[in-house]
Amino acid sequence: MRKLSNSELNRKTPEAFKKALKTPLILVLDQIRSLNNVGSVFRTADSFLLEGVYLCGITGTPPHKDIYKTALGATETVHWKYFSSTLDAVESLKSNGYRVFALEQAENSILLQHFKIEKEQKTAFILGNEIYGVAQEVIHHCHGVIEIPQSGFKHSLNIAVATGIACWEVYRQLLLHDEL
Amino acid sequence: MRKLSNSELNRKTPEAFKKALKTPLILVLDQIRSLNNVGSVFRTADSFLLEGVYLCGITGTPPHKDIYKTALGATETVHWKYFSSTLDAVESLKSNGYRVFALEQAENSILLQHFKIEKEQKTAFILGNEIYGVAQEVIHHCHGVIEIPQSGFKHSLNIAVATGIACWEVYRQLLLHDEL
Repeated sequence: MRKLSNSELNRKTPEAFKKALKTPLILVLDQIRSLNNVGSVFRTADSFLLEGVYLCGITGTPPHKDIYKTALGATETVHWKYFSSTLDAVESLKSNGYRVFALEQAENSILLQHFKIEKEQKTAFILGNEIYGVAQEVIHHCHGVIEIPQSGFKHSLNIAVATGIACWEVYRQLLLHDEL
Repeated sequence: MRKLSNSELNRKTPEAFKKALKTPLILVLDQIRSLNNVGSVFRTADSFLLEGVYLCGITGTPPHKDIYKTALGATETVHWKYFSSTLDAVESLKSNGYRVFALEQAENSILLQHFKIEKEQKTAFILGNEIYGVAQEVIHHCHGVIEIPQSGFKHSLNIAVATGIACWEVYRQLLLHDEL
């Protein structure tokens, strides 16, 4: 099995990326402390052709070298917006027809393996601070909580890893819809 | 929706983790340069109760403070082993009945959304160097290549994020098997 070279990967130019029909998913970063995590989320958002990333509160924004270090160019393609208040971001999304879910461990959460996405449904996922998670007040304003089930010692995934898993789950389901 | 407190997460003690029936999946790190990535892979392996992590070649091993920084205790629970040669790790896995897949972009790859795991099948995923990916020679010795489809500008996910996605896909399928 021969590895593909970079020129065979059918990568979009930044211009083509901006024009392409996006995966109808927006990521909301609620008070993310690590700029490396922010950059990594941009890289994932580029890979899965997401609609955008909302950076809230203390979350760092481009331009910043520590974001560039892990974004590796994805800040050039992925649409982003800054909100000083995460609640404002949530309200803006809701008023634009998005279903908004916090990624958290909470009562009455939907386990990720049971989460079903409709093809035309616009969705947003909120990812929380590395220590404190998504603020409880923000959760109160969401349509629901999605939880990645875990069975180890820590019950805590890195925020960039959790984001990747949640984005994959949406992207996977949409890919399978398209094959039907 | 009330967030769960740490004491409600039903977390395993390290002793319970070691005794628990594991997800039959081993991660093989082929020449991973970043100790932060190694630590993050440990954290994911803990979350999904994986059988172990094989660290190969230049990949750093515990104890190391830069691994601890992102592993956050998971090096205490997850079984790991060092191989100077990734090929030796692959041969050892194959002779122990594992199906071994490189996570790469290659000709005739299996797209991750089409990859099906059997409940009793022991599986290993090989994750490659941040720049060069999984070595072509190593790929030649695998049963197959699994590819995470991507549609952006970069066509490149962080290795810890790609690992999380691949582990989730196995874990998700096994969870759904258990519900049948």
